[in-house]
Amino acid sequence: MDLSRLPLITHYHEDAGPYFTAGVIVAKDPDTGVRNGSFHRLQVKGRDRLGTSLHSRRHLWSLQQRIEARGEPLEVVRCRTVDLEVPARAEVVLEGRIIPGVREPEGPFAEFTGYASHASTNHVIEVTGVLHRRDALFQDIVSGNSAEHTGLLRVPGECRIYQALKGILSDVRAVSYPPSGACRFHCYISMKKTAEGQAKSAIFAAMGEDLSLKWVVVVDDDVDVYNEEEVMWAVATRMQADRGVFVVPYAMGAILDPSSRNGLTAKVGIDATAPLDGWTAERCTVPKDALRMVRKKLKALIR
Amino acid sequence: MDLSRLPLITHYHEDAGPYFTAGVIVAKDPDTGVRNGSFHRLQVKGRDRLGTSLHSRRHLWSLQQRIEARGEPLEVVRCRTVDLEVPARAEVVLEGRIIPGVREPEGPFAEFTGYASHASTNHVIEVTGVLHRRDALFQDIVSGNSAEHTGLLRVPGECRIYQALKGILSDVRAVSYPPSGACRFHCYISMKKTAEGQAKSAIFAAMGEDLSLKWVVVVDDDVDVYNEEEVMWAVATRMQADRGVFVVPYAMGAILDPSSRNGLTAKVGIDATAPLDGWTAERCTVPKDALRMVRKKLKALIR
Amino acid sequence: MDLSRLPLITHYHEDAGPYFTAGVIVAKDPDTGVRNGSFHRLQVKGRDRLGTSLHSRRHLWSLQQRIEARGEPLEVVRCRTVDLEVPARAEVVLEGRIIPGVREPEGPFAEFTGYASHASTNHVIEVTGVLHRRDALFQDIVSGNSAEHTGLLRVPGECRIYQALKGILSDVRAVSYPPSGACRFHCYISMKKTAEGQAKSAIFAAMGEDLSLKWVVVVDDDVDVYNEEEVMWAVATRMQADRGVFVVPYAMGAILDPSSRNGLTAKVGIDATAPLDGWTAERCTVPKDALRMVRKKLKALIR
Amino acid sequence: MDLSRLPLITHYHEDAGPYFTAGVIVAKDPDTGVRNGSFHRLQVKGRDRLGTSLHSRRHLWSLQQRIEARGEPLEVVRCRTVDLEVPARAEVVLEGRIIPGVREPEGPFAEFTGYASHASTNHVIEVTGVLHRRDALFQDIVSGNSAEHTGLLRVPGECRIYQALKGILSDVRAVSYPPSGACRFHCYISMKKTAEGQAKSAIFAAMGEDLSLKWVVVVDDDVDVYNEEEVMWAVATRMQADRGVFVVPYAMGAILDPSSRNGLTAKVGIDATAPLDGWTAERCTVPKDALRMVRKKLKALIR
Amino acid sequence: MDLSRLPLITHYHEDAGPYFTAGVIVAKDPDTGVRNGSFHRLQVKGRDRLGTSLHSRRHLWSLQQRIEARGEPLEVVRCRTVDLEVPARAEVVLEGRIIPGVREPEGPFAEFTGYASHASTNHVIEVTGVLHRRDALFQDIVSGNSAEHTGLLRVPGECRIYQALKGILSDVRAVSYPPSGACRFHCYISMKKTAEGQAKSAIFAAMGEDLSLKWVVVVDDDVDVYNEEEVMWAVATRMQADRGVFVVPYAMGAILDPSSRNGLTAKVGIDATAPLDGWTAERCTVPKDALRMVRKKLKALIR
Amino acid sequence: MDLSRLPLITHYHEDAGPYFTAGVIVAKDPDTGVRNGSFHRLQVKGRDRLGTSLHSRRHLWSLQQRIEARGEPLEVVRCRTVDLEVPARAEVVLEGRIIPGVREPEGPFAEFTGYASHASTNHVIEVTGVLHRRDALFQDIVSGNSAEHTGLLRVPGECRIYQALKGILSDVRAVSYPPSGACRFHCYISMKKTAEGQAKSAIFAAMGEDLSLKWVVVVDDDVDVYNEEEVMWAVATRMQADRGVFVVPYAMGAILDPSSRNGLTAKVGIDATAPLDGWTAERCTVPKDALRMVRKKLKALIR
Repeated sequence: MDLSRLPLITHYHEDAGPYFTAGVIVAKDPDTGVRNGSFHRLQVKGRDRLGTSLHSRRHLWSLQQRIEARGEPLEVVRCRTVDLEVPARAEVVLEGRIIPGVREPEGPFAEFTGYASHASTNHVIEVTGVLHRRDALFQDIVSGNSAEHTGLLRVPGECRIYQALKGILSDVRAVSYPPSGACRFHCYISMKKTAEGQAKSAIFAAMGEDLSLKWVVVVDDDVDVYNEEEVMWAVATRMQADRGVFVVPYAMGAILDPSSRNGLTAKVGIDATAPLDGWTAERCTVPKDALRMVRKKLKALIR
Repeated sequence: MDLSRLPLITHYHEDAGPYFTAGVIVAKDPDTGVRNGSFHRLQVKGRDRLGTSLHSRRHLWSLQQRIEARGEPLEVVRCRTVDLEVPARAEVVLEGRIIPGVREPEGPFAEFTGYASHASTNHVIEVTGVLHRRDALFQDIVSGNSAEHTGLLRVPGECRIYQALKGILSDVRAVSYPPSGACRFHCYISMKKTAEGQAKSAIFAAMGEDLSLKWVVVVDDDVDVYNEEEVMWAVATRMQADRGVFVVPYAMGAILDPSSRNGLTAKVGIDATAPLDGWTAERCTVPKDALRMVRKKLKALIR
Repeated sequence: MDLSRLPLITHYHEDAGPYFTAGVIVAKDPDTGVRNGSFHRLQVKGRDRLGTSLHSRRHLWSLQQRIEARGEPLEVVRCRTVDLEVPARAEVVLEGRIIPGVREPEGPFAEFTGYASHASTNHVIEVTGVLHRRDALFQDIVSGNSAEHTGLLRVPGECRIYQALKGILSDVRAVSYPPSGACRFHCYISMKKTAEGQAKSAIFAAMGEDLSLKWVVVVDDDVDVYNEEEVMWAVATRMQADRGVFVVPYAMGAILDPSSRNGLTAKVGIDATAPLDGWTAERCTVPKDALRMVRKKLKALIR
Repeated sequence: MDLSRLPLITHYHEDAGPYFTAGVIVAKDPDTGVRNGSFHRLQVKGRDRLGTSLHSRRHLWSLQQRIEARGEPLEVVRCRTVDLEVPARAEVVLEGRIIPGVREPEGPFAEFTGYASHASTNHVIEVTGVLHRRDALFQDIVSGNSAEHTGLLRVPGECRIYQALKGILSDVRAVSYPPSGACRFHCYISMKKTAEGQAKSAIFAAMGEDLSLKWVVVVDDDVDVYNEEEVMWAVATRMQADRGVFVVPYAMGAILDPSSRNGLTAKVGIDATAPLDGWTAERCTVPKDALRMVRKKLKALIR
Repeated sequence: MDLSRLPLITHYHEDAGPYFTAGVIVAKDPDTGVRNGSFHRLQVKGRDRLGTSLHSRRHLWSLQQRIEARGEPLEVVRCRTVDLEVPARAEVVLEGRIIPGVREPEGPFAEFTGYASHASTNHVIEVTGVLHRRDALFQDIVSGNSAEHTGLLRVPGECRIYQALKGILSDVRAVSYPPSGACRFHCYISMKKTAEGQAKSAIFAAMGEDLSLKWVVVVDDDVDVYNEEEVMWAVATRMQADRGVFVVPYAMGAILDPSSRNGLTAKVGIDATAPLDGWTAERCTVPKDALRMVRKKLKALIR
Repeated sequence: MDLSRLPLITHYHEDAGPYFTAGVIVAKDPDTGVRNGSFHRLQVKGRDRLGTSLHSRRHLWSLQQRIEARGEPLEVVRCRTVDLEVPARAEVVLEGRIIPGVREPEGPFAEFTGYASHASTNHVIEVTGVLHRRDALFQDIVSGNSAEHTGLLRVPGECRIYQALKGILSDVRAVSYPPSGACRFHCYISMKKTAEGQAKSAIFAAMGEDLSLKWVVVVDDDVDVYNEEEVMWAVATRMQADRGVFVVPYAMGAILDPSSRNGLTAKVGIDATAPLDGWTAERCTVPKDALRMVRKKLKALIR
């Protein structure tokens, strides 16, 4: 099967320049037989040629290094042309091998941060075959700082922090990784505080759990953490920065944060919960009954 | 004219409890003849009775104090029943007098902060007459943390800061008082930085100009300050807090900020502009041509 | 069985004043049948009388409150005199009831912090019977800032932090809750750092996991965290406080820390790991061979 | 007219080496006809030769760059030898042109900071004619950290800050740019504080208005800001540094401050006003009557 | 001798209200015979009556307490009317006793801080005799923030710090306790720095030596510490506050500092020395030769 | 006498590689006759050859430089082979000369810090003779972070600080330079505080007195400063870091601290004394009587 025949892909590629997608590369260690599945970006470089970027902290990197040192080919997926099992329910499987000793320019890639990523190992995958289901669906995403891309970070990130916090603070209500933080750098947490200072504990736990977090805000449980305006409103009206804000410099941050310095970043924790003692401010909202009545009367007037 | 006959007002009032509006109170100093116009909240307390709250830092307060001390009535607006000129183009004019020696419970009032304001001088205005244009329009606003209310703060606030900054830093692009800050506590500024550290100067100038500001963020000119998500994205990916954030405690803040302590607040300045030197990150967006083409192809596929 | 007949207890009590011990109080909710086991201090007040201190954040408190409100007795343990199951392998079981409506002075108690704890709910348990195995062992501990007492905090504390850290940072080696911190306030962590700033992540995770921690130090994996002198040596020779130390005030601390203010404390994190880049200092120790040889020669000389 | 004939200049120059003065260079854009007047240092390099230093942020620089690129001469002042209008009341006018393509060593120059300034664009002005009034006065100043030089900064600086502050804080009394700060880096402000924290607002406004300010002190209105000892006395007896002092690093500073780092500086704000609440200290001074009487008696004794 | 006959004193007192002076009170412990000399303020309250203020941290206080408890009179100075030796060279000696059991209003007193001191023990000295040399000189000082008063603090203070510093840092040049700091709260030190960071050591040593110091500035040895303008010029042009300034709150301060809080103060250390590395700024002054020549030529012109 | 014949030395050297010791080098200035005694490390390089490391800040360095410049030998100790007096009671004297113009690799040396010191001037001493008492004792120390080595720093260090503090704060009880700080970087001070904030004064004085100190902790007088666990217990239970801890960066530190940056270090002061006001916590210990009785009863039971 010709890669360029895949619907959507072909034409986009031909008209609009280098085309990137991403997929799970399944590889088998020829010595141990252990299979490894990992998510990688793939640049379509020709009918049977995909560029990809490995990472020195991941398993596929060391596997490829080892094989390359022996001069043996490293099969990526199996079936007709390679000796490898592939997931049975895959829609489309690209069989191929990472060509040893070959490096070709690859990238830049639009990262979830909203910036282009140039760094690449410049490996090349030769596609030796394509398997696909009848009427296979090819689900592609628009990469970059888009909901399609960052959503892949958001869901597991929010779950992970929520789980971690629930074990410590029973009154955590909700956790959000907002798009403004590329669903990775900011975290908003709501909780029903029962003791002063608990918000700081929630911040520590979140920062401890996810090394990428750089800005964690805790709000009361009446604030909707999925509504950034509400979170910032709590910052405006319930926080005093000399008590509620702390900064920890020289901490480990995400390498893809362009503002980080040699992998180091300064982290910010913000306790935007109202104090338990002496807080008399009542939040006011328009009662639902009143809204209903107004709408009814407006309708009557408009007619 | 019966206050309770005004469209919208009457029914809302009767059904939903105490009704508040606000208007310009025009008063004339009986000694000097000098007129004073000031914006006040007005609580409809009956057919000819409005509660209002004066403020000891404003002119009407001292005028009312002086008159009250002499035992003379203080006319609020003029025409048929009071000796006072009113603006010619007013839609509706309530004639009346602040009754000396009378105080009645007034409030609470939904403030722009999103909280109820209880503090009041409990003055009472007796409405002695109502003037209105034929088919007068009564423009009311929903008070509280709503765009109708905070917008009255936003427009002059943004203009004022923009004017102040332009005199100092020619490359300021835009200024926003976002709703999240009740259009009064937060300020977002975009500028085309020409020297490192300029963002801090912009922050000083903004904080100096508007005593209510508590949180000022400066971003580069490619960031839309009217889009809070973009501003927070710049915070996520271009700021390092040990260099870019500063906190000044024991500064003067807005009294209506419920988190302030005896009128004191801690102010936060955030420089979220990318450094001029050594910054190589390229922001990536989907090219408009590509978007057009994809839409065209999608249409073709869908048909 | 007479409480005062138990070996060790009797005489200590008679000679040296009020005697305290602690045990698991097993209680059954008369409405739901749910049993509750909780650890409480017990003051021997007479042959059949034990003082105890409940805590308003724990289950036994609300259970006792509910029963007391109805005027019903609350059985503490069961067997002959009370309708309650007791753990089958218990060495000694004191059967009794918390007498409703009775409060007697109880305390002070020597706490793990090294200070006396006066606060008490002053409840009284009437001992209605004692069950014990033949030749029962009564394991008592010296309370206060002793290894016997704090060790009960140390073991679960260290395990908990080690577990929490292993899930995040694979290279954590050891965790210590040193006696100097009453096995509750200080935590020393050793790890083989692979990226700069990781120590800060370990600190966040530890502080997030255990709300009582107030002082967390991270050292390299060549430092023995169970040897406080070595930990402080790393602080002396590998730390620079402007980068390695951070303080977060207004955080939630342990109520029993006498320096805390209304339950709030300032937490300290210390990264005492050597930098990965540019660190050339070699630690020197006497080689084991040399030590052996010297000992041999010394023996020969002494003879 | 021979430059070396000007009184004072000639002889000083001949005896004491390179001579510097400064003047307004008036230039006309040959394309637009727009005239530009700017203040520049001038080094007398010979009978008809003046060195000067342009600055890349100023207009004359771009004008000169544009002309030089075309190979056309750039006339500096007009009258007999150049086609340019000069101010009618000028005492002395040096007509000349900035010689395109020529650069000669120029400087060092004694700056207002008290340090020598070496940086120069090394342009050369050929003096083509000199116009002067009969008995023209040539007003020269001693440059460097002298009152003659820094006074030129002081007057407009103090006015500017005073104006800016008056618009915001009605109770500002006086503003001083003391010589100790080279009349540019320090600013002392006195005000009658009406609310706690106002001094911080004054500091923000001053720092926002003048980018060169690095150290701003606010004192009460009984303190004479033109007397540095009094200002420092207020710092000694009315300030507590943990509340009153703030430091903002990585801000934009004056390039001529030798301690600045790549144009960045750390700014210091100091609120040295006494607190409004709880301040009972009375300042004591010798009453004028007593002084008069003592002087009278002393006179009598001396006779 | 009548106190009111002393030259200067009498008349000043009679005309201008309560008169204060100060002197050395010499007292002898009746049990041990040990003499104690201490400096006290003295308020002339009548022909033979002086008010004085003891201090609970000083020896005279405990001596007086002990004597008063026994009901015995405490002799202050000796000669004719009291059994006490007085310094042989004293100009004037007031013999008297602190009257046991008597307290009379005393104060306020103009303190060196520039503020009135009200706190007093209200003791009363009965003057039982006056000894004086023939033509005795009575040296009085104007108290308050005057050179006469603060100079008494300045000389020993500067010596003490200079001595303390010389033992540690051989390159200390001069120490000043400027009048602006009431010769007690500020300290300016000049030194020839040989290693970076030494200025901080000098600050620690000074703060350690004199508990009253609140503001210590270190400058290079080309700066005259007795000229406050020069010191502040070094602060303006050689200091960067994020490196050079530190604040230590909750330290012990002078009780007479009206801004201190329960005896606690925040101390400020400022390193205003230029860095040893990379500092190229040359201080420029007008050469003495040039000044001489200019003066000569000016004279010639004026004639 | 053959160096390799000295007991202990020879065999250790032959078996275990380069051998280091240290001794007092006595030298006489050939011009002035002034003798200089200084402590140096000595590496046994052969039968008559010792490597040593001079230091450019010490006297022997300049003496050796001067002699070497003239081409003259520099005698180190005297007696038979060199013209120099040696201390009469020396156990062993190595006579020799620092060979001019010769440098040989020397080191590394195990320093008191616990790290190897490589830096060396690589001078070589030729041993020209050995004098020793009959049955001379050769006292060697194990260098490195051992009590033998650091003890040489501890005794004078503790005395010096104790002396310095006693002059200022009469209630200082004890001073410790703990081994954890290599007896040079940490200092623990106990005192009976009489005024809040005094601990900070003690810290300033200690840091001022000994430039090497990097971490100073002050505790109450019931805490044993020679027991590190007790000191850290005070840190755990009596300190609040936002009030009690301060950090001063960019201060001068010990060059041998491997974490220092170009000789600069950040110093930490910790006030771990309990507050004087409002402190009710009672420390509890087991009474000695009770301990005695328990031991007696245990003995009886064991028999």
